[in-house]
Amino acid sequence: MKPVVSIIMGSTSDLPVMEKAAKFLDEMQIPFEMNALSAHRTPDEVESFAKGAAERGVKIIIAGAGMAAALPGVIAASTTLPVIGVPIKGMLDGLDAMLSIIQMPPGIPVATVAINGALNAAILAGQMLALSDSKLASKMEAYKHGLKNKIVKANAELADVKYEYKCN
Amino acid sequence: MKPVVSIIMGSTSDLPVMEKAAKFLDEMQIPFEMNALSAHRTPDEVESFAKGAAERGVKIIIAGAGMAAALPGVIAASTTLPVIGVPIKGMLDGLDAMLSIIQMPPGIPVATVAINGALNAAILAGQMLALSDSKLASKMEAYKHGLKNKIVKANAELADVKYEYKCN
Amino acid sequence: MKPVVSIIMGSTSDLPVMEKAAKFLDEMQIPFEMNALSAHRTPDEVESFAKGAAERGVKIIIAGAGMAAALPGVIAASTTLPVIGVPIKGMLDGLDAMLSIIQMPPGIPVATVAINGALNAAILAGQMLALSDSKLASKMEAYKHGLKNKIVKANAELADVKYEYKCN
Amino acid sequence: MKPVVSIIMGSTSDLPVMEKAAKFLDEMQIPFEMNALSAHRTPDEVESFAKGAAERGVKIIIAGAGMAAALPGVIAASTTLPVIGVPIKGMLDGLDAMLSIIQMPPGIPVATVAINGALNAAILAGQMLALSDSKLASKMEAYKHGLKNKIVKANAELADVKYEYKCN
Amino acid sequence: MKPVVSIIMGSTSDLPVMEKAAKFLDEMQIPFEMNALSAHRTPDEVESFAKGAAERGVKIIIAGAGMAAALPGVIAASTTLPVIGVPIKGMLDGLDAMLSIIQMPPGIPVATVAINGALNAAILAGQMLALSDSKLASKMEAYKHGLKNKIVKANAELADVKYEYKCN
Amino acid sequence: MKPVVSIIMGSTSDLPVMEKAAKFLDEMQIPFEMNALSAHRTPDEVESFAKGAAERGVKIIIAGAGMAAALPGVIAASTTLPVIGVPIKGMLDGLDAMLSIIQMPPGIPVATVAINGALNAAILAGQMLALSDSKLASKMEAYKHGLKNKIVKANAELADVKYEYKCN
Amino acid sequence: MKPVVSIIMGSTSDLPVMEKAAKFLDEMQIPFEMNALSAHRTPDEVESFAKGAAERGVKIIIAGAGMAAALPGVIAASTTLPVIGVPIKGMLDGLDAMLSIIQMPPGIPVATVAINGALNAAILAGQMLALSDSKLASKMEAYKHGLKNKIVKANAELADVKYEYKCN
Amino acid sequence: MKPVVSIIMGSTSDLPVMEKAAKFLDEMQIPFEMNALSAHRTPDEVESFAKGAAERGVKIIIAGAGMAAALPGVIAASTTLPVIGVPIKGMLDGLDAMLSIIQMPPGIPVATVAINGALNAAILAGQMLALSDSKLASKMEAYKHGLKNKIVKANAELADVKYEYKCN
Repeated sequence: MKPVVSIIMGSTSDLPVMEKAAKFLDEMQIPFEMNALSAHRTPDEVESFAKGAAERGVKIIIAGAGMAAALPGVIAASTTLPVIGVPIKGMLDGLDAMLSIIQMPPGIPVATVAINGALNAAILAGQMLALSDSKLASKMEAYKHGLKNKIVKANAELADVKYEYKCN
Repeated sequence: MKPVVSIIMGSTSDLPVMEKAAKFLDEMQIPFEMNALSAHRTPDEVESFAKGAAERGVKIIIAGAGMAAALPGVIAASTTLPVIGVPIKGMLDGLDAMLSIIQMPPGIPVATVAINGALNAAILAGQMLALSDSKLASKMEAYKHGLKNKIVKANAELADVKYEYKCN
Repeated sequence: MKPVVSIIMGSTSDLPVMEKAAKFLDEMQIPFEMNALSAHRTPDEVESFAKGAAERGVKIIIAGAGMAAALPGVIAASTTLPVIGVPIKGMLDGLDAMLSIIQMPPGIPVATVAINGALNAAILAGQMLALSDSKLASKMEAYKHGLKNKIVKANAELADVKYEYKCN
Repeated sequence: MKPVVSIIMGSTSDLPVMEKAAKFLDEMQIPFEMNALSAHRTPDEVESFAKGAAERGVKIIIAGAGMAAALPGVIAASTTLPVIGVPIKGMLDGLDAMLSIIQMPPGIPVATVAINGALNAAILAGQMLALSDSKLASKMEAYKHGLKNKIVKANAELADVKYEYKCN
Repeated sequence: MKPVVSIIMGSTSDLPVMEKAAKFLDEMQIPFEMNALSAHRTPDEVESFAKGAAERGVKIIIAGAGMAAALPGVIAASTTLPVIGVPIKGMLDGLDAMLSIIQMPPGIPVATVAINGALNAAILAGQMLALSDSKLASKMEAYKHGLKNKIVKANAELADVKYEYKCN
Repeated sequence: MKPVVSIIMGSTSDLPVMEKAAKFLDEMQIPFEMNALSAHRTPDEVESFAKGAAERGVKIIIAGAGMAAALPGVIAASTTLPVIGVPIKGMLDGLDAMLSIIQMPPGIPVATVAINGALNAAILAGQMLALSDSKLASKMEAYKHGLKNKIVKANAELADVKYEYKCN
Repeated sequence: MKPVVSIIMGSTSDLPVMEKAAKFLDEMQIPFEMNALSAHRTPDEVESFAKGAAERGVKIIIAGAGMAAALPGVIAASTTLPVIGVPIKGMLDGLDAMLSIIQMPPGIPVATVAINGALNAAILAGQMLALSDSKLASKMEAYKHGLKNKIVKANAELADVKYEYKCN
Repeated sequence: MKPVVSIIMGSTSDLPVMEKAAKFLDEMQIPFEMNALSAHRTPDEVESFAKGAAERGVKIIIAGAGMAAALPGVIAASTTLPVIGVPIKGMLDGLDAMLSIIQMPPGIPVATVAINGALNAAILAGQMLALSDSKLASKMEAYKHGLKNKIVKANAELADVKYEYKCN
């Protein structure tokens, strides 16, 4: 089984956040790999990774990093695969990571999601793959439907909150 | 009893904040309902809710949401009832929710209150209803008077703080 | 003709922004008044204004101010009428005014709109008044319908933008 | 010719920014459409658009909006197609739009690019389509190569800047 | 003994911060009073306080408040005594309070200190009073000298931190 | 005539802002001096200035600076005279200067005013001096009264703004 | 043994952060000293320190400070030795300290590192010294190589994270 | 003549800012080179540059970049030479570039200067080189002395500003 999505994080300390992406890909049965590489501490490994990804069959890269989060942009610089960036909350509430990832110059995009938004990064990867995989497309729709049902159920619990002037 | 005010929140996890609105409405004997619906996860339900609210007799909508808090604005888009928005603190100290709610385009206002300011949202609803309900207007004034008295009493406690050069 | 809405601004230099509120009220045929009073430079006048407003028949107050924008909150402190606050852009892109207006303490709400959002403040006032004025309610709906039509028309203009691979 | 990418903007005033996306798609010979629809002023049109897009053959949606920029998220709420969000600079340097677009709740991602980054949004769309279109993939690589060459040429111009102690 | 400095805070919950001012004044033997009054909840009491302060012999007012911290500015509006403002940390790290206090319009200054900087507010008050009280001036200088000595002593403790290549 | 207030600025380019302080002091007949000295470029001059000020009869120092605005704090470090800091707008809208001036450590206060708020700095100086100068106190009150009258007059001009539904 | 690097901090409470610099210098066998001196509380000591440093053989100064962090800039004002500034996190997430240190005026630089980035300050000092010390240069490269190896090893641990669809 | 300092910028559009560094190095007779290379658009060129710099005799690298300014950090990742980063003002007032450059992870420092602070970057380079070049050290001191004299002269001009109550 060859990985279709590659999850990469700047440090293994980002794992608790990035695992949410892994779980979603697993649930959708999308083969993936997971690595910790640092744009600043292992630049050569990042470069080989980025340059070799397409050839190895990887289709989408999800890169999470904190602080001066160069990782997603540096990977995007060396591949034409879509790169999804996840700002990891650390200092400054994650605003430093967000700006370091999203404010890419014209020509080299990174698809950025919310701070710590690794789950959404994986969903985005699923949406991209579903463009040419109708079975996955159905799963993605079912997942979305499930989200809706959770909210609808949760709403039902609000009925238990009782006030004299509450009407529902 | 039909609801006059409708409290809506993006997620049941917002309940601890939004309950302050419920308590105030209950205290003022203003009939209300309370629902959890998400602009992003249950858009159809939000739309039916917003479009049907006026017809069901709802006069004012209080909507609380966090992060990219689209809920209040999306509801305001589908009704001409006054919509009061409550930014819920989550990431970035709630600044993301505040800006997502308050910075509405010309034509579709949302009356925004402080971060986690659900009590003030309910008071604002009471003030609006009091414009055509003199009995409620009296209650609102009594409530405001009570606030003042609490501060005056609290001030009295400061007399217990003793310093040699403190004169009161 | 007695004013139903009172527009108040911290300085006559705020007039270019606050006039958008005046124009909307005029268009909706809602009687209004317009004054420049400063919470910091004419506190007594602001206080008399706020305390006397309800008695003079004013139902809603729209208050615009910049910088350490105390005006809306100070008025809200002395009345139970709904107060709508308009942060005026000056220094710091208007963020100082926004925070000074919106972050009111529990008990004394100000319904805050976007930076320089005077038009939306007036629409909000119209929505509140329409709760007990069905004729105004119809006008408000017609206005909203008009907004939609403008966008739909504007969209039509995009058809004139020609590219070889553009399909509409 | 049916559109594969759909560009949508909150207002026709966003056209000067969003055109950069149109130009890139045209250059890559990717059929696209372009519409101005507002999440707050034409919510029904946005909903029909989002719900019907996949059926009409649209594969990717690029949505640009400013201020409380709900458009990209609201579209993402009603489709499982990938949605790319472009924060349009307006007030607060575009920070309000950026946070309103990027901070999506778990489950409903928007792939967000830099403020006014419409070109990068289109490149991202191209990268996604290239995953199952090897001819487009080659064009995307050629484009990226061209970018590099521009920088290399521009660098050559720096040779003309003369200082006594400058060595290149 | 009549108070020379008046400490006022928006809420008794601000006491843990504002007490630092009380302790300094006590140490310097400057008679003071301490009250909790709210610009938004007890506006009349604040007004009487501000207008009567000079007549009662108060020379300097130290006002602490959080969030939309109108208290210092509102007091400054009704007196020509120097008003020192202390932003109290609450939401948004105290930035809302700081901007609400410091960004006063031309004509009505508030001498603003750091977030939670109540001690410095009291020192500032001491410095102002010392301008016409040479005995107090000496005490203020002694206090400042003491600060220096504390740092010098603390520095000596660093000698205990041992490293092989540490030279002091 | 010996200076009572000393205006100091980090650079002569700050003169257009700091002149507002000079004009006010002149109007109030408060003798002052005006110098440009830099905490970073002329530290020795700043130190001699700060240490010698009290002896030369200076009672209050107004210090304006931009960017990493160390000047007010550095002066406050070497004197027990009250130091009023004026953040000068430059980069980052003046926020860098504001934080560099206001966030002083416990023990060494700087009385900070609004960004570019040199007029208010001078008024604050006048208020401090008026504590022991009843003639100046009267002038300060007259000045404040004048401010109020200007607003009241300006308000009168609003009567000229005519709308059909405008009542004043 | 005379110190080559001098670590200075605004307060001994900054020691837990600044120790990371000490440890690195010790590991690299670079003689150093460590002092706590405050630009605002012990200005004379700071000045003597800064003026005497070069003569005592100090080559590089690392200065850490929080809030209105004037220390690094004030030292830079009195020496032509390179000064490295470390913003210490305190209030406002350390943003106040960062801006107070980095935004130096033209002519007097401070080499600023990340919030709490004392280790990087020491590495930077090592890099500067290594310019004329080939033995140290080798150690610095070995250290950098070690960093890389740590990441590579940490990455290996990710292999233990098991999912059905995880491929590595 | 081989370059000792290498100035590198992300785009030739950064030249007006980065030229200030060139001018200073020229004035100090420090041989330098100047290139435009982009971490995101020419990653291979940046890597070869960074890896080869030391061997070519370069001692210090000054790297300027805007937006998601990865250039300085990416260079620092591939060399142990000191790297000085210059955030270039573009969007968001340059705050995005500043955070992207300064918030480097432990192990890989970038010596960051003020937004657009290219002159200070060059002075910092001069200070580093002067550590082992006593002739340059003298020049650096002379330059610093010259700065002081400029301020002192500029101060003299303030004598021409005349007010009745101005004493100098």
